[in-house]
Amino acid sequence: MTRHETAFADLEAAFPGRIERGEAVRAQHGAGDSWHPAALPDAVFMARTTEEVAQAVKLCAAHGCPIVPFGAGSCIEGQVNATQGGLCIDLSQMAKLLRVSPEDMDCTVQTGLTRQALNEELRATGLFLPIDIGAHATLGGMASTRASGTMTVRHGTMADLVMGLTVVLPDGQIVRTGGRARKSSSGYDLTHLFIGAEGTLGIITELTLRLTGIPEASKAGLYSFPSIEAATQTVVEALQFGLCLNRIELMDALQVKAINAYNKTELPEQPTLLVDLAGSEQQVDTDRDTFDELASENGAELHPVATPEDYSKVWALRHSALYAARGLRPGCKSLSTDVCVPVSELPRILAETSADLDAEGIIAPMHGHVGDGNFHLVMLFDEEDAAEKARVQAAHGRLVERAIALGGTATGEHGVGLGKKSYLEAEHGAGLELMKVLKRAVDPANLMNPGKIFDL
Amino acid sequence: MTRHETAFADLEAAFPGRIERGEAVRAQHGAGDSWHPAALPDAVFMARTTEEVAQAVKLCAAHGCPIVPFGAGSCIEGQVNATQGGLCIDLSQMAKLLRVSPEDMDCTVQTGLTRQALNEELRATGLFLPIDIGAHATLGGMASTRASGTMTVRHGTMADLVMGLTVVLPDGQIVRTGGRARKSSSGYDLTHLFIGAEGTLGIITELTLRLTGIPEASKAGLYSFPSIEAATQTVVEALQFGLCLNRIELMDALQVKAINAYNKTELPEQPTLLVDLAGSEQQVDTDRDTFDELASENGAELHPVATPEDYSKVWALRHSALYAARGLRPGCKSLSTDVCVPVSELPRILAETSADLDAEGIIAPMHGHVGDGNFHLVMLFDEEDAAEKARVQAAHGRLVERAIALGGTATGEHGVGLGKKSYLEAEHGAGLELMKVLKRAVDPANLMNPGKIFDL
Ligand SMILES: Cc1cc2nc3c(=O)[nH]c(=O)nc-3n(C[C@H](O)[C@H](O)[C@H](O)COP(=O)(O)OP(=O)(O)OC[C@H]3O[C@@H](n4cnc5c(N)ncnc54)[C@H](O)[C@@H]3O)c2cc1C
Ligand SMILES: Cc1cc2nc3c(=O)[nH]c(=O)nc-3n(C[C@H](O)[C@H](O)[C@H](O)COP(=O)(O)OP(=O)(O)OC[C@H]3O[C@@H](n4cnc5c(N)ncnc54)[C@H](O)[C@@H]3O)c2cc1C
Repeated sequence: MTRHETAFADLEAAFPGRIERGEAVRAQHGAGDSWHPAALPDAVFMARTTEEVAQAVKLCAAHGCPIVPFGAGSCIEGQVNATQGGLCIDLSQMAKLLRVSPEDMDCTVQTGLTRQALNEELRATGLFLPIDIGAHATLGGMASTRASGTMTVRHGTMADLVMGLTVVLPDGQIVRTGGRARKSSSGYDLTHLFIGAEGTLGIITELTLRLTGIPEASKAGLYSFPSIEAATQTVVEALQFGLCLNRIELMDALQVKAINAYNKTELPEQPTLLVDLAGSEQQVDTDRDTFDELASENGAELHPVATPEDYSKVWALRHSALYAARGLRPGCKSLSTDVCVPVSELPRILAETSADLDAEGIIAPMHGHVGDGNFHLVMLFDEEDAAEKARVQAAHGRLVERAIALGGTATGEHGVGLGKKSYLEAEHGAGLELMKVLKRAVDPANLMNPGKIFDL
Repeated sequence: MTRHETAFADLEAAFPGRIERGEAVRAQHGAGDSWHPAALPDAVFMARTTEEVAQAVKLCAAHGCPIVPFGAGSCIEGQVNATQGGLCIDLSQMAKLLRVSPEDMDCTVQTGLTRQALNEELRATGLFLPIDIGAHATLGGMASTRASGTMTVRHGTMADLVMGLTVVLPDGQIVRTGGRARKSSSGYDLTHLFIGAEGTLGIITELTLRLTGIPEASKAGLYSFPSIEAATQTVVEALQFGLCLNRIELMDALQVKAINAYNKTELPEQPTLLVDLAGSEQQVDTDRDTFDELASENGAELHPVATPEDYSKVWALRHSALYAARGLRPGCKSLSTDVCVPVSELPRILAETSADLDAEGIIAPMHGHVGDGNFHLVMLFDEEDAAEKARVQAAHGRLVERAIALGGTATGEHGVGLGKKSYLEAEHGAGLELMKVLKRAVDPANLMNPGKIFDL
């Protein structure tokens, strides 16, 4: 019995047999992919339509019952942990492609569709959604964390690709934001209000998305560098040359070692850049030559990625980075974190962080979308060893403070959830209070994913 | 004497000799470039620093005195008209480039800098801000109307290029939003809250902007088409081919006629596309050949734009469009409007609108950033002729309703101000109420540019 039984009784009456209370289902919904202690919702509802979401939200609102929206649960900062209990609304069954316009290169989807499934459905049109993240996430979840990934250097983040949304507000009202025009100056930007709000302002049920043509050609390259500095210097130069970069990813020597062990490969265990160029055949060839030169001048060794099979293999290796990192200390927990700084500050923050981690004896492979100035550390620790855990958390805090001090941000793509809450004051100053003003206005009863991003 | 004398007395004490009350200065600040009746502020203050803005806002807030932020006053929808009197805060003297980082391709500016002045100052870096609008506007004003222009098809709008802001809130607090990282998932998107808010939520005093490298090569082309449909069909095809389009602008026959008369040129008076391709020499050449083919297949006649002088001349002609249009009926007023639809709907809305205007006998040349689905009509009328004015306003209303019905928006780039207020309900439905919720939360006393975008 929880204090929300009256809400659940009404929900059960409205959706007979569909309000799940079993331990197993609740456990699947209470933790995401994070190191934060699981916190199970009291009940789970798998919604099928916008109207069902609106009805469930209204019933919860009437009883003051907290609501946690749930996509695929791949979040890393504890965003779906139901720290105040309540109802988890799982949106993964709302997974239809509703319409696509090849002429306008846009589409509208239900929130629970994954980007992999979307791109599969779009294949025949020659279009795709150019967001490449390392998880099987839902598009609504990706919008809600302002997700981005390997192709962001070229195509931007979810904030750049969502043209409009259907959202259920905390009082159950349905609002449509944005639209299908490529641009608009018609009033406040409601779409961006919900992107990155981590479900604290409402529940996204549909998204209109900008698509891109599948490029004529794309070619990858793998480059081993003598140092992190040499690799990041190459990144800065390639960006300034305006090469047709589609992805530019950095891994440190330890991350490459982890990947070798996890995938039984034999990449040189050095700082490594993985590069993808996309465009016309001609442009890709010219630009790869230029990139090869830049990399060579910075001391890199080049490893050909010649065939389509090589190409797929290389990117599969990159996407194994998180699990490979965790594999370095089996049975350990991992504090996965991401920060983002101006690209020119990458050498400095990486050097300072690496010195810090070495001094503390912390094992933490690094990989990142360095074209955006974004990188991840997977900091491994033994959950039973309180001292080690505290050391890891303290080093993590110093990393985030360093990023903020260099004009960067506490999180480039994973979001705030529970894990980054304590840094928001340092990053945003008076802006944090303004965020709270918005939250109080849109969700006065604090029912939508309460306790995430900030406390009221 | 106005009811805000106590506020002005305090302001005068704080800024001796700088609170201007003269008719001439007030008249310069009360109308923008719009057909709406002028409405003069009671006083004008030329601010020099963020702190001065904050102090002036605090004094106004203490006395309940309305505030109208003012950039260059080039707005078209009556946004700066001080319909409730009060203090106009003119930001045009805050015009410094504060920093530029060529490595990160970003800069920070004061709000009153114009984009022309910024690009002049940036010239030596090889970088520029890729927003090309037809007016000498300030960057703060451009952010506040979510401005865009001829290069938006390639580089996006102000919403895509502003990375962070310094804003003075309605209570005088200073908030810094966003930052210098290329992306962030750190809390709500405060930056986009102020972009397009038309000064109703606060006063922008600084902006951090994404820059772009000046392309190696750019080449223009001018194409006369047998029909609007043939021209827009060419646009759709060129977008789908992913050509390196930098600008793609449409003018109808009447607009070309107006330009000929205004500039003493002899362009064929037919539907015309003006195209700019930018990239590497090679890419530009290849893509222009492709474009030439697409245009020819759609029946176009090609006019070479060979030399750099031709290139500048062609774009200067395009930028004369608004004044040239007004020149068609000297002494008349012009209701300049802009709407935006999905690109595929352009042929339909242009055909329906043109039939409507013909039936009404309204003279209204059309030009537009058609790569975005955005176009402008300059609807000419005699201010003394009430019947004609009413006919023009009614036809304008039908145009906007048509755009909304086709999935588009009441305004692609000029903003709402006074002129588009009555269409926001049709476009946003329940979203309009959500905008009001935000406004009430951020500006509970409704002091910031009251009565713009919507009434409370
Ligand atoms: C192996 C791995 C690799 C990853 N790689 C990346 C990466 O490259 N880039 C990146 O950005 N992230 C990455 N992530 C993190 C994660 O995948 C993203 O945060 C993703 O956006 C979460 O989507 P989801 O559908 O799993 O959402 P969930 O985890 O279910 O939810 C995330 C947040 O959004 C809210 N939410 C979910 N759906 C909705 C909705 N419809 N309306 C309102 N709120 C909603 C939830 O309440 C929660 O606050 C990775 C994670 C893993 C495990
Ligand atoms: C010939 C001509 C061509 C044009 N072409 C284009 C075009 O191609 N694309 C386009 O988008 N627009 C165009 N416009 C419209 C106009 O130039 C834009 O709306 C421009 O963004 C206005 O900038 P401004 O500095 O003149 O702002 P103003 O006109 O002074 O103000 C515009 C609005 O922003 C507010 N504001 C101004 N500064 C601030 C600030 N610092 N903080 C908060 N609020 C502020 C004002 O209160 C007002 O609501 C054109 C106008 C003309 C006359």
